Amino acid sequence: MYNPQLNAQGQLQHLLSIEGLPKRILTDILDAAENFVGVAEREIKKVPLLRGKTVCNLFFENSTRTRTTFEIAAKRLSADVLNLNVSTSSQSKGETILDTVNNLIAMHADMFVVRHQQSGAAHFIAQHVPPHISVINAGDGRHAHPTQGLLDMFTIRKYKPEMHNLRVAIVGDVLHSRVARSEIHALATLGVPEIRVIAPRTLLPAEVEKLGVQVYHNMDQGLKDVDVIMMLRLQNERMSGALLPSTQEFFQTFGLTPERLTLARPDAIVMHPGPMNRGVEIDSSVADGKQSVILPQVTYGIAVRMAVMAILGGGNAA
Amino acid sequence: MYNPQLNAQGQLQHLLSIEGLPKRILTDILDAAENFVGVAEREIKKVPLLRGKTVCNLFFENSTRTRTTFEIAAKRLSADVLNLNVSTSSQSKGETILDTVNNLIAMHADMFVVRHQQSGAAHFIAQHVPPHISVINAGDGRHAHPTQGLLDMFTIRKYKPEMHNLRVAIVGDVLHSRVARSEIHALATLGVPEIRVIAPRTLLPAEVEKLGVQVYHNMDQGLKDVDVIMMLRLQNERMSGALLPSTQEFFQTFGLTPERLTLARPDAIVMHPGPMNRGVEIDSSVADGKQSVILPQVTYGIAVRMAVMAILGGGNAA
Amino acid sequence: MYNPQLNAQGQLQHLLSIEGLPKRILTDILDAAENFVGVAEREIKKVPLLRGKTVCNLFFENSTRTRTTFEIAAKRLSADVLNLNVSTSSQSKGETILDTVNNLIAMHADMFVVRHQQSGAAHFIAQHVPPHISVINAGDGRHAHPTQGLLDMFTIRKYKPEMHNLRVAIVGDVLHSRVARSEIHALATLGVPEIRVIAPRTLLPAEVEKLGVQVYHNMDQGLKDVDVIMMLRLQNERMSGALLPSTQEFFQTFGLTPERLTLARPDAIVMHPGPMNRGVEIDSSVADGKQSVILPQVTYGIAVRMAVMAILGGGNAA
Repeated sequence: MYNPQLNAQGQLQHLLSIEGLPKRILTDILDAAENFVGVAEREIKKVPLLRGKTVCNLFFENSTRTRTTFEIAAKRLSADVLNLNVSTSSQSKGETILDTVNNLIAMHADMFVVRHQQSGAAHFIAQHVPPHISVINAGDGRHAHPTQGLLDMFTIRKYKPEMHNLRVAIVGDVLHSRVARSEIHALATLGVPEIRVIAPRTLLPAEVEKLGVQVYHNMDQGLKDVDVIMMLRLQNERMSGALLPSTQEFFQTFGLTPERLTLARPDAIVMHPGPMNRGVEIDSSVADGKQSVILPQVTYGIAVRMAVMAILGGGNAA
Repeated sequence: MYNPQLNAQGQLQHLLSIEGLPKRILTDILDAAENFVGVAEREIKKVPLLRGKTVCNLFFENSTRTRTTFEIAAKRLSADVLNLNVSTSSQSKGETILDTVNNLIAMHADMFVVRHQQSGAAHFIAQHVPPHISVINAGDGRHAHPTQGLLDMFTIRKYKPEMHNLRVAIVGDVLHSRVARSEIHALATLGVPEIRVIAPRTLLPAEVEKLGVQVYHNMDQGLKDVDVIMMLRLQNERMSGALLPSTQEFFQTFGLTPERLTLARPDAIVMHPGPMNRGVEIDSSVADGKQSVILPQVTYGIAVRMAVMAILGGGNAA
Repeated sequence: MYNPQLNAQGQLQHLLSIEGLPKRILTDILDAAENFVGVAEREIKKVPLLRGKTVCNLFFENSTRTRTTFEIAAKRLSADVLNLNVSTSSQSKGETILDTVNNLIAMHADMFVVRHQQSGAAHFIAQHVPPHISVINAGDGRHAHPTQGLLDMFTIRKYKPEMHNLRVAIVGDVLHSRVARSEIHALATLGVPEIRVIAPRTLLPAEVEKLGVQVYHNMDQGLKDVDVIMMLRLQNERMSGALLPSTQEFFQTFGLTPERLTLARPDAIVMHPGPMNRGVEIDSSVADGKQSVILPQVTYGIAVRMAVMAILGGGNAA
């Protein structure tokens, strides 16, 4: 089957979504990221792997948080980084996305980190660039945000290396989540035998069971004996919508409280992609508690992004 | 005659406009740019010519596209780059342009890349800086955008080295173009014997013939047997104005279509400064066709900007 | 007494305000800055002291001018610099300041330069970071802007090394000034025997005399025989307020004119933190005159910021 992320030699050319990534490549990225965790702990947090390369953060939608993680990763690889907020410039002058991209390629850009409000934007760009250019999807509509999925897998593997023995619960707004679908695929690919989703009916996609997950509408039942709790962010724009009665009621029914956490295994870890809505999907004492690995997720996110960029840029030794 | 761009030794201190540049300096810049074309094709696209220098992109008007080209050029020369969007800060606090510039000089800035909506802004700044500081005009009102003119000359020389044998047509909104006037001067300086302008009467400056060009109001006649077609961008703000009936009608009369292109010489090249309005001044199949050198213009634009910065910064070997 | 700026060994961990800094540390910073003045005069204006470190400009309030000074200083120390304009991103997504900071620490940020419209913001962040992270206050509400205070002390010491012999006047809107209070403390700490404040009653804080200053409401009397005149900026937002009759009247009563300047000692220096309101608090001929050290203040500001960052980052030799 044609895979738009791989080149003719079966190597990763673009990172567009976790779906469709063979287990071999998924594992290669996670293994490479192990090396980059160490780079951030050195006195001089820099390696020369992308020296003289130009990385373009091509953001059609503003996201300081995501842009920052890629900017840090690229700079620690010694790349030159260009931040392009396209919504406010060329696009308003009527230039097409492809003209913008082709101009940057003509300037010898090497890598694009693309954020766009529309699903498929990064795929579209990847289809049109020459073989020596790489595209990383940094979030496209509701579709995918693969480095988030990868850093979650990395974090789980760090804390729970025996992945074929795990029970994982994904909790919250699965319907609108950029990452939930990717997580499910990645967990299955890496051999996790039991994946649960816990959500109200209104925040679940149709036929979610077909992805091979167990569906719970009751938080207490869903959390029972799990090893990993992956909380999802409740998007602000949903909060006042018709899908939810109120954020207070959401917290009462699906918020992760210290009491509910005791239903999981005693050594269960708690994850969240950030930014958190404290008191909406997660209680502050859980977010900051000893089972939380939310900040390690951020740390590993830099290592995973460095690994992806290094692999796409042609080198992967730290 | 006093030339504000040259220092007491007759060397280039500022790049403000192509008008007034002696042929010797024009040729020096184009020759230096030849070396920098190669830098962008290296594995590590960096040379240390401006290492430890501070280049300020001083933009009083937003232009991500232009800023990006200078930022890439400066970073590949190893300079430290500061992006200053002045419209939103000091200016609104009532500080004068000269106070802003003098502050940056006091911080030991070495070079200013200036973009301003008013004609003459870069000249004004250049008049007030000390001899070790250089100013590059990156577009001032309708007046000048000299690096665009230079990269166009570089591109023509690359594809048509026998410039004393060329027939060149400049097509479109000559009246409002930042570059058309500079192009005419540069082409004449470099020895191009026949320069045509093709435009409706409403988009031509008064007495344009005095610049030594042949004027055509008919596209088919104007394109006949030319070697180089330089399309101009139709500014969005003109499109709905009284000067033009409609963009469709403009395309029918002055748009570059594949049929019209056949009127030029078979090996004629097509140029456009970007961003293009596809279907307004140029047909997509021409823009992307085999005679188009629009993307090479962008590539050469980086080399030319590196050459200008290197010369102003005191070194020009790549 | 507990000092939030010093670590357990009595070394500077954060720079939050000049108040509370022992004379020893104040002098150490000024002495270190002497070395960095020379760095900016070198052919290659860079030293590797912060190579591989990540400095975050965390600006909750826009200030291109202040951000620029820290960005230049950090880049000349070879740090990687991240510019984060937080008002427009995570904060609007409901994330707390501490979550933002903790995320950046998880990404191995080393230093935060914090600008916030609320007094105490930098202190608040400093209280919550681990011992290997440093916070620099780049302006919090009306409270403090310590690098401005330090560069003023550096400038005075440069021009008037015998500080125990000086008469210094601080003129203008003392009430709303971020720096006036710090200046008074710093001048007293460094042994200046006579400190005057000159202002209308409406622009003076209550009980200002308790700080050990002499209060003048008459400009001519206050300037008599002073060695140093420190003008304050009249904030735009005050100009149309009830506290002032008009900017013209302010200039007539408290503006620094060439005539008034003659009342001070013939070798008196004139200072201003910028951006200046020419014709409001200071006459242009004075601002640009031979007694003005306003641009040297800007130059020394880079050196002082380099010194602070180098000391906080663990090295201080230039």
